[in-house]
Amino acid sequence: MIDTTTALELVLKHGTLNTDFFEVDLKDALDYVVAKDVVSRIDMPPFRQSAMDGYALHVHDDFTYTVVGEVQAGDHNDPTLRKGEAVRIFTGAPVPTSANTVVMQERVTLDGNKIIVEGSPKVNMNIRPKAEQIKAGGIAIHKGTTIKGGHIGFLASLGLTKITVSKKPSVAIVVTGNELVAPGMPLSYGEIYESNGAMLRAVLNELGYKNTSVVTIRDDYDTTKNVLSDTLGKYDVVVVTGGVSVGDYDFVGKAFKAIGVQEIFYKVKQKPGKPLFFGKKEETSIFGLPGNPAAALSCFYIYVYPLLKKYEGAEHMNLPTISLPLLSDYTVKGTQAQFLKARIEGAGVRILGGQSSAMVQAFGDANALVCLPVNSMEIKKGQNVKTLLLPTK
Amino acid sequence: MIDTTTALELVLKHGTLNTDFFEVDLKDALDYVVAKDVVSRIDMPPFRQSAMDGYALHVHDDFTYTVVGEVQAGDHNDPTLRKGEAVRIFTGAPVPTSANTVVMQERVTLDGNKIIVEGSPKVNMNIRPKAEQIKAGGIAIHKGTTIKGGHIGFLASLGLTKITVSKKPSVAIVVTGNELVAPGMPLSYGEIYESNGAMLRAVLNELGYKNTSVVTIRDDYDTTKNVLSDTLGKYDVVVVTGGVSVGDYDFVGKAFKAIGVQEIFYKVKQKPGKPLFFGKKEETSIFGLPGNPAAALSCFYIYVYPLLKKYEGAEHMNLPTISLPLLSDYTVKGTQAQFLKARIEGAGVRILGGQSSAMVQAFGDANALVCLPVNSMEIKKGQNVKTLLLPTK
Repeated sequence: MIDTTTALELVLKHGTLNTDFFEVDLKDALDYVVAKDVVSRIDMPPFRQSAMDGYALHVHDDFTYTVVGEVQAGDHNDPTLRKGEAVRIFTGAPVPTSANTVVMQERVTLDGNKIIVEGSPKVNMNIRPKAEQIKAGGIAIHKGTTIKGGHIGFLASLGLTKITVSKKPSVAIVVTGNELVAPGMPLSYGEIYESNGAMLRAVLNELGYKNTSVVTIRDDYDTTKNVLSDTLGKYDVVVVTGGVSVGDYDFVGKAFKAIGVQEIFYKVKQKPGKPLFFGKKEETSIFGLPGNPAAALSCFYIYVYPLLKKYEGAEHMNLPTISLPLLSDYTVKGTQAQFLKARIEGAGVRILGGQSSAMVQAFGDANALVCLPVNSMEIKKGQNVKTLLLPTK
Repeated sequence: MIDTTTALELVLKHGTLNTDFFEVDLKDALDYVVAKDVVSRIDMPPFRQSAMDGYALHVHDDFTYTVVGEVQAGDHNDPTLRKGEAVRIFTGAPVPTSANTVVMQERVTLDGNKIIVEGSPKVNMNIRPKAEQIKAGGIAIHKGTTIKGGHIGFLASLGLTKITVSKKPSVAIVVTGNELVAPGMPLSYGEIYESNGAMLRAVLNELGYKNTSVVTIRDDYDTTKNVLSDTLGKYDVVVVTGGVSVGDYDFVGKAFKAIGVQEIFYKVKQKPGKPLFFGKKEETSIFGLPGNPAAALSCFYIYVYPLLKKYEGAEHMNLPTISLPLLSDYTVKGTQAQFLKARIEGAGVRILGGQSSAMVQAFGDANALVCLPVNSMEIKKGQNVKTLLLPTK
């Protein structure tokens, strides 16, 4: 059985790196990964910009200046200031080429068409230099960046309306289990409601992956083989939940073999998610996740999400990670690596109750996963632990 | 001038709490706030469920049991075990009423139709008790919870297909400034590209607020007054960017007065975002944000986002907050409270370069905002600071 580090390395090594890209309108670019460096066509700011409401002037030996005009934001004029002259100027307005400072209006006494400045103004105050943020030809956003709201603001400020982004992977979720009944239907003894499909689809959606499908199948070898065979050709990533444990009625592993899925690994020294399967067929990556919802979701965040980001060529493939002190002692059962639903609060991280593989409600309170290495045994309050940040809002 | 705490209190005190709700399909429920406690109609699990592949039996004095049948996941049978009998059982299958434990298959030696168990099995092992997660009639998710992927998994597992959620506020973004030119158009001297509209709309979208509009207007009193007057009646929240600073050409404040917007506060002892305005007219909340993109976005996360969450009746209205050690010394300029773009990494938080109000690109690298109180002066490396987590993916 391999360890969690090796498992993630193998996923990222064998995961397909897609090379398809396309142009997207900036307004629709959220969550996409930039496929080519985005280059600015302009200096930003494009001119020396006043950072304050006040007076632009060329510093001379006297405290008094004559106000000879004004420049508002959006004005196109560039008045030439002679010695002892100033112009009224507003935030965002172009600072006249002949001025070398802007004095805040709070530091000025107005006397008719003259101003008296407090003390001797320093040169280059309250001026945002031309190209302070970026020069024309400079790289605004590097290839591999996942686009967030702030990036859209920055790119719009450079006048861009489209960017080139990587294609996102399509994801099929195949849910297996004779015990599963669709929500809304009546439940007989021995049956439970199917929840992995809806959950994984919602999480994929939350993370920006909209091209998804869910199929539910019974534990039947032929059906499993046929559905998987059909799905492999149509999707970039196939996530099967259930049917991968050691039980006699697990047809998934047999079906994988029969349709030519190459096993990269099966079983990882971890809890939850020991019977994790990862394989490839041509360019399609195939995960076999545990059927228990909480185990499936943990494995999704830790292994499937990085694979999706690799497909897109993202620089950061894992969820953001931070080392945080535990807020109370924790005793690990067993020797496997642990992924524990947790909540970041105050100045540390608290491991939540309800860690059983079947219990997904702890994910409601969770905003993090604490990752403990093998043989962790006793972790003391205050000890730092590796903490993955779940998508937060 | 008020402080940041008072400002946020006033926003949340005066912000409208909406009481409209509606039913949404569970698959579309992401990011909505639950309007009524969601009650489970079933016990979950609905029966005693095997947590392992193995053998269900009623413990007796001998190590040997006769295997008299099997129960697969999804089977409806409840075989009665006599003394010394066991059934083969699989993960997720119903444990027979007459069995009091499940022995993992790894702890069993199979000998024809008999099994010999290792040692004396403990009672109630590897059984998930009926209703372990929730009882029928119990509250699955409390009113005020914002729905995430894990919740959708849990609610689906209870058989639910719809939930009752609060209406989301509609948001109009009104961008002002003569210097602003739409991206894609040519730029003249003194002009910059408009980016606040696209940025705020993207961020709203990222946070689940899809009912938004953007209007760009010039610095002209009549236009400003007419557009604002028209917008106030049609949206729950109006966010104006620009036009609220002390400059002579700021028509927004005058327009607010003319159309009957009640000022709740104007100006906050903070950087960036000193000239922040907040007002109400009937049920509509109105923000005046600074025109500088980075300042506008900081104010959005700190003041506008909590107001939107209050509107929806959310329990948690602010972005998640954590206290983290600074990764290097930081010297504060000025005495105001500071909101600083920052990046959580390693075991602490790093304040990023490019904190100027106009420079939004730091938001690309940022995954957090560090909030320093007034008169912070010198903060030393290792000192804990209040850190707001920005939406992460």
